[in-house]
Amino acid sequence: MNAPTSAHHLQPARDVPPALLQALAARFGTQYSTAQAVREQHGRDEGSISAPPPAAVVFAESTQDVQDAIGLAAQHGVPVIPYGAGSSLEGHLLAVQGGISLDVGRMHQVLAIDADDLTVTVQPGITRKQLNEAIKHTGLFFPIDPGADASIGGMAATRASGTNAVRYGTMRENVLALQVVTASGEAIRTGTRARKSSAGYDLTRLMVGSEGTLGVFTEVTLRIYPLPEAVSAAICSFPSIEAAVRTVIQTIQLGVPIARVELIDANSVRVVNAHSKLGLREEPMLLMEFHGSPAGVQEQAETVQQIAQDWGGNAFEWATTPEERTRLWAARHNAYFAAVQSRPGCKAISTDTCVPISRLADCLLDSVAEADASGIPYFLVGHVGDGNFHFGYLLDPNRPEERETAERLNRQLVARALDMQGTCTGEHGVGIHKMGFLVDEAGAGAVEMMRAIKRALDPHNILNPGKIFTL
Amino acid sequence: MNAPTSAHHLQPARDVPPALLQALAARFGTQYSTAQAVREQHGRDEGSISAPPPAAVVFAESTQDVQDAIGLAAQHGVPVIPYGAGSSLEGHLLAVQGGISLDVGRMHQVLAIDADDLTVTVQPGITRKQLNEAIKHTGLFFPIDPGADASIGGMAATRASGTNAVRYGTMRENVLALQVVTASGEAIRTGTRARKSSAGYDLTRLMVGSEGTLGVFTEVTLRIYPLPEAVSAAICSFPSIEAAVRTVIQTIQLGVPIARVELIDANSVRVVNAHSKLGLREEPMLLMEFHGSPAGVQEQAETVQQIAQDWGGNAFEWATTPEERTRLWAARHNAYFAAVQSRPGCKAISTDTCVPISRLADCLLDSVAEADASGIPYFLVGHVGDGNFHFGYLLDPNRPEERETAERLNRQLVARALDMQGTCTGEHGVGIHKMGFLVDEAGAGAVEMMRAIKRALDPHNILNPGKIFTL
Repeated sequence: MNAPTSAHHLQPARDVPPALLQALAARFGTQYSTAQAVREQHGRDEGSISAPPPAAVVFAESTQDVQDAIGLAAQHGVPVIPYGAGSSLEGHLLAVQGGISLDVGRMHQVLAIDADDLTVTVQPGITRKQLNEAIKHTGLFFPIDPGADASIGGMAATRASGTNAVRYGTMRENVLALQVVTASGEAIRTGTRARKSSAGYDLTRLMVGSEGTLGVFTEVTLRIYPLPEAVSAAICSFPSIEAAVRTVIQTIQLGVPIARVELIDANSVRVVNAHSKLGLREEPMLLMEFHGSPAGVQEQAETVQQIAQDWGGNAFEWATTPEERTRLWAARHNAYFAAVQSRPGCKAISTDTCVPISRLADCLLDSVAEADASGIPYFLVGHVGDGNFHFGYLLDPNRPEERETAERLNRQLVARALDMQGTCTGEHGVGIHKMGFLVDEAGAGAVEMMRAIKRALDPHNILNPGKIFTL
Repeated sequence: MNAPTSAHHLQPARDVPPALLQALAARFGTQYSTAQAVREQHGRDEGSISAPPPAAVVFAESTQDVQDAIGLAAQHGVPVIPYGAGSSLEGHLLAVQGGISLDVGRMHQVLAIDADDLTVTVQPGITRKQLNEAIKHTGLFFPIDPGADASIGGMAATRASGTNAVRYGTMRENVLALQVVTASGEAIRTGTRARKSSAGYDLTRLMVGSEGTLGVFTEVTLRIYPLPEAVSAAICSFPSIEAAVRTVIQTIQLGVPIARVELIDANSVRVVNAHSKLGLREEPMLLMEFHGSPAGVQEQAETVQQIAQDWGGNAFEWATTPEERTRLWAARHNAYFAAVQSRPGCKAISTDTCVPISRLADCLLDSVAEADASGIPYFLVGHVGDGNFHFGYLLDPNRPEERETAERLNRQLVARALDMQGTCTGEHGVGIHKMGFLVDEAGAGAVEMMRAIKRALDPHNILNPGKIFTL
């Protein structure tokens, strides 16, 4: 098992010639900045690793801007790092080989709402919340919800998911088509608005999850869904994590079309209570949501309540109004930030393993025991309907031994998940933090295939180089 | 709009040196054949195009066999064409550049049934019916059902779907992981058994739909599903194709989770009646199936019945027993063969466009008018819940003008579908028949990206060369 050591982000910086900076300044004017604060803001993400900032930032406002920025960078062989909302967790945005940051945040238009087809086409900089606000009037919604209010482009680039994936899938299932600017500055289209296609290589799915290394997305066509006729949310607390997880496993195996089912451990409940004043019982709990017709929702809920009862769960507490539901889910989404605030000055390292559902209890319980034994403060939340969960280890950055311990716990967790035919990352991506794990998971041959694709599509290695793997 | 002319399958044949044939004979013994009948059987598919047969056939019985066959072919730069059940429609199996056929039909084992995780791992030669037979005792099923009893490897290679895709997705959504033998003879694994992953490039989805041009699949891990608690099937006949299609559009837009909804035009009903003695009313009809809990199924059916009634549909006729349902669906699956038999000696050319659902009625009706005006016998069936439908033009092979007419109708249909942001192929693949259409659909830049990937992963162009595109 390779460790995600600091060596991964100590890559040789590449030269950014003054001629390129002059050309970018001339082309982009006020859409270009070398101000220290701007560069620093674009040189980090929400993760725990740091690197020197990019040499400059370009604020693209159109596909042509993206093409021109990449075209100029390509002439000089200089790295280009696409930037959306800055919310990635694995160092995706860090200028580990130097270069320029290409901020697409100003490209946040909704280009087409095709309500009858349940599709929407957007620019990459729009965030998931902005998108849902923009389509609310149609009675449709976009379900993918990572913790942060991430940009759609960034979510596509990391193959993000969130709490609704158990029912609606991830970005893999929900990106229908893309416009992509390639390493040569050419804009191509992948996919159509048809629901399915067998027309050649699935470039859309190749681009989704490529973390900015194969192209920069300038348009994204997404599937959207009718708002369910009925929604009900419930929380259920359990005597143990195991009881909660066994309930989830049985629910999934029975094929209950539950929309969301989140595990929140007692540590997380504590920090969420403190942060959001929720007054929840400080025990492991499941936060669930059911979507469907009124009768269907009731039927699903009754089935799950019965399963939960068999495992010693308490009676469901219902959030019946939209406001109550929103408050609960906001609390869940804020768990990460609430936890970080619970230990002032700390940095969080978040794990992201995902295992086949039958192995979920074993994987979780062994890892909880290890985390408890380590003495490091942590919280645990999970999209357990998918077999995906996150430990958040809360480190004092002034105590290197804590990072050491957290990295060890993560390595043990990943090794366990891979033994169980799972993955080191369910939704955060590889970035620079999990490059070693990727080789353990996929094997050297598969990673070599990824490298071959990268070399073929980006021969000068200018698109977000040094992420996923090094060449 | 480029025509799929005969030029596409008149590619220069590459030399197959006797040294390779000797080496294959020595390595494979009775698993090797150069008999004329065997070669001819392996040099054609269910489509309408022919080419000279491969020089030899290897019957692989293990991953090692596949590796060795490809390894030997690679040494001599000779094409290798993977062969499963022989049921492809677009010339995928034709030895258009010569070479050897690699038959994986004997690799038909179920390697692992992980019922608790709703996954199964199989060898590529197993057919979809064999697979469902093998997992029947678990109460689970694999829903993807192209017309033919295709092999799972072939279905993955063409990104196949069928009548259940509207509810369960296509091979794109249902292949979780693969073992793939690459052009150098190396066996790699793509994906894990986790339901989702963000671990690097999505090699699984790149391989699914690559039509044998990037690797030969030797293991396939699939999602499987609990048999629904309740199933009911209904047929509903309509005064017009438009009324039937409008019913489907509204059903999908309302988010009704219908499992199957097939359009069968009056021509198809006639040939199916003649072939399967069904006594169905010879009008356009929808064949539908609802999956869920008993209450859920009833609710769905009532909703759709109401919509159908608004469009002038007749009362649903229910197939309540499994035997009746099987008989109806077998008739649907046999429509292609029933139609071919209805015009003795004919060849069928099947179209495969798929459009956004809002455009389905326009696309279909204009194309029906053109087909009627042409005077050529045809039938029309469709997975209309996905916006995918097939015209089958029934040609007298002795009348070249009929092929000319059919190809013109297909070109007009594809042009119409692309104008509507649809695809030239919803589920059959490109093969050699749709190479021109692919460029029209994806654009030269995207096809060039596919070529770059192909060159990177198969530098000597030995894996099913001359399919999807030429190099």
